[in-house]
Amino acid sequence: MAVIVQKYGGSSLADAERVRGVAQRIAASRGADTGVVVVCSAMGDSTDDLLALSRSVAKAPVEREVDLLLSTGEIVSCALVAMALNDMDCPAVSLTGLQAGIQTESLHGKARISEVAPDRIRTELDAGRVAVVCGFQGVTEEQEVTTLGRGGSDTTAVALAAALGAERCEIYTDVEGIFTADPRIVPDARKLDEIDYEEMLELAASGAKMQPRSIELGELYNIPILVASTFSEAPGTLIHREAGMEVRSKVRGVASDTNVAKVTVLGVPDRPGIAAAFFEPLAVAGVSVDTIVQNTSVDNLTDLSFTVARTDVEKTLPLVRPVAQEIGARGVTHDEALAKVSVVGTGMQNSPGYASTMFRALAAAGVNIEMITTSEIRITCIVSDEQSAEAVRALHRAFELDLP
Amino acid sequence: MAVIVQKYGGSSLADAERVRGVAQRIAASRGADTGVVVVCSAMGDSTDDLLALSRSVAKAPVEREVDLLLSTGEIVSCALVAMALNDMDCPAVSLTGLQAGIQTESLHGKARISEVAPDRIRTELDAGRVAVVCGFQGVTEEQEVTTLGRGGSDTTAVALAAALGAERCEIYTDVEGIFTADPRIVPDARKLDEIDYEEMLELAASGAKMQPRSIELGELYNIPILVASTFSEAPGTLIHREAGMEVRSKVRGVASDTNVAKVTVLGVPDRPGIAAAFFEPLAVAGVSVDTIVQNTSVDNLTDLSFTVARTDVEKTLPLVRPVAQEIGARGVTHDEALAKVSVVGTGMQNSPGYASTMFRALAAAGVNIEMITTSEIRITCIVSDEQSAEAVRALHRAFELDLP
Repeated sequence: MAVIVQKYGGSSLADAERVRGVAQRIAASRGADTGVVVVCSAMGDSTDDLLALSRSVAKAPVEREVDLLLSTGEIVSCALVAMALNDMDCPAVSLTGLQAGIQTESLHGKARISEVAPDRIRTELDAGRVAVVCGFQGVTEEQEVTTLGRGGSDTTAVALAAALGAERCEIYTDVEGIFTADPRIVPDARKLDEIDYEEMLELAASGAKMQPRSIELGELYNIPILVASTFSEAPGTLIHREAGMEVRSKVRGVASDTNVAKVTVLGVPDRPGIAAAFFEPLAVAGVSVDTIVQNTSVDNLTDLSFTVARTDVEKTLPLVRPVAQEIGARGVTHDEALAKVSVVGTGMQNSPGYASTMFRALAAAGVNIEMITTSEIRITCIVSDEQSAEAVRALHRAFELDLP
Repeated sequence: MAVIVQKYGGSSLADAERVRGVAQRIAASRGADTGVVVVCSAMGDSTDDLLALSRSVAKAPVEREVDLLLSTGEIVSCALVAMALNDMDCPAVSLTGLQAGIQTESLHGKARISEVAPDRIRTELDAGRVAVVCGFQGVTEEQEVTTLGRGGSDTTAVALAAALGAERCEIYTDVEGIFTADPRIVPDARKLDEIDYEEMLELAASGAKMQPRSIELGELYNIPILVASTFSEAPGTLIHREAGMEVRSKVRGVASDTNVAKVTVLGVPDRPGIAAAFFEPLAVAGVSVDTIVQNTSVDNLTDLSFTVARTDVEKTLPLVRPVAQEIGARGVTHDEALAKVSVVGTGMQNSPGYASTMFRALAAAGVNIEMITTSEIRITCIVSDEQSAEAVRALHRAFELDLP
């Protein structure tokens, strides 16, 4: 039996009417020889509502309990979707992460899937039922409930597609696909028909709307991922390996992310092992460090700057300050009002002209660059939060992304 | 280690402030050599809210999915209580029905606990943590989530107390204990200091506020159950086996239940096996039939009346009508506007005067009696819903329950 995995995001399930709409879509896509596995996020803003609730009962809610609390959001949406499907005579059953066999490591709040044991899902598919699986959640070997971090339902969907040998994974959301830039910032941004995993990975990591790990998994298991709108029949964007030749060697999009904070340790003694002393405790605490820049050493002292998600600053500073003190650094400063803008495209590394075009365009728009990093297919500048939208628009124009 | 089980109802956990208040209570009751297991219901009206949500997506929500949906209510409240406890430096961990080892039969919506495997709870208690267990829910052998029916958290609490050999089970609620009648109906109703299981069972089954199965379990395993208020330090009512001699041979309370409907099958041929034909399908569907009355047979035809919860009428009629037609009964009628009033006391069976006092008091109050049933320790009359409050007040007066 061919299998398709469909994932529906929170805005697609925001109220009872949308839940019924999603159920209709699912029922229509079910065929005699195609099994459908559905992955749901929590309804609308319910994850944020649950987080607010947790903070109303505890100053520092224990992460293990936060995970269990948040897992209820997806159980609610999945049970409702399964009810709506059954009500329209489409047999369906909802499955928690545990029931669906989503096993994870035990890092609460950001667990990684260690294994998928899809026996129960296969049983349901063989019985002709749609399996509606709770995204974003899993269980450890000790049956402790974990969550996979923001956007984790994308990863659930792609992991299930890989484990089930699905033909493709369809991600339904409130936008029509992947654009050359965020259409809310750049009105003439164009929708891309296809994109390869690497490019999508950079766009996602730089602020577009899929969890990066889901793209990595898609690439690893070669699962074609379709990103499309729940609310229209437009064809969406296909993320896959063999993107057409004509799209190579070109800037494909501009991404931005305003959830960026910079932490700077001033006057760090320049000797081996210092970086590890800072970054190991952060890794243990599950804080992702993004861009790292170390200035030229003067008098054997250096300034070490790095960026983290703004939402991780509160966790980061108490981990960094004692280390700074211990090694005799001069101090720790931070700036929470930053953003990241990136231009992304597969052929960029071989064409140094892209970097200068980028810097020139930002300069012309009066945007100051705080930090720069590059990868094989991306150039990223850290700029002030306030100027990020203008920076994105300037880059979209400079690289002529509005032209097909 | 001595173990105490405490159960907190939905109104005790209605908002963040009450959750913190409950956490303080729990933390205070924890001793160096006393382990505390807490059972929580869903917050405030959240179970009703979830039921309303289910009906907004499906005309007839599948019960298996309703159970999974409802189970989230208790997960939310337990995770919050555990967070609040940890936040006040009282180590605690919340456990779902599955994690707590609550195994049930597979009747959705009204499952019975088949086994409690409290290994995980013991591990947590041994580690010095409070175990906060989701009431009302369990899992089948196939790891399907079930619920135990209205008030099921009481049964969870007593079952855990039995499995853990707890010293006692404390049920915290929004009233100060068990009263001689509902104080909202009878202002001078008195709180009872103690009561035995049988009496409480009749009071609970007749409309007081604990799930009857929890009392049965308490009696079976001889677990003293204290019913007390979350919001005061008043001593509550102790339900236990050795209730003082002086409370015997006396009416202990008046109970009422307005969730009563009567179904009457008219002109039933009076032959063996007829009753089974009606009641077997109801049992399979999980409908509890309460009072059953069959009138004297005239011309070999009889009228068969029985009561069910008003909320079960919609389920009952479609199961009764085809049987009535098949056996050639004249028709099926029903009356949903009924109530049940009972006087309860251990010594009643040996004192026939109680029945006549009851009927005389009701007659004097102008209350018409539709049906009568009795048990060893109870006399129950089915009356019109409208007259039930007046009936309760009349009986409370007639049996002088306002006097100590």
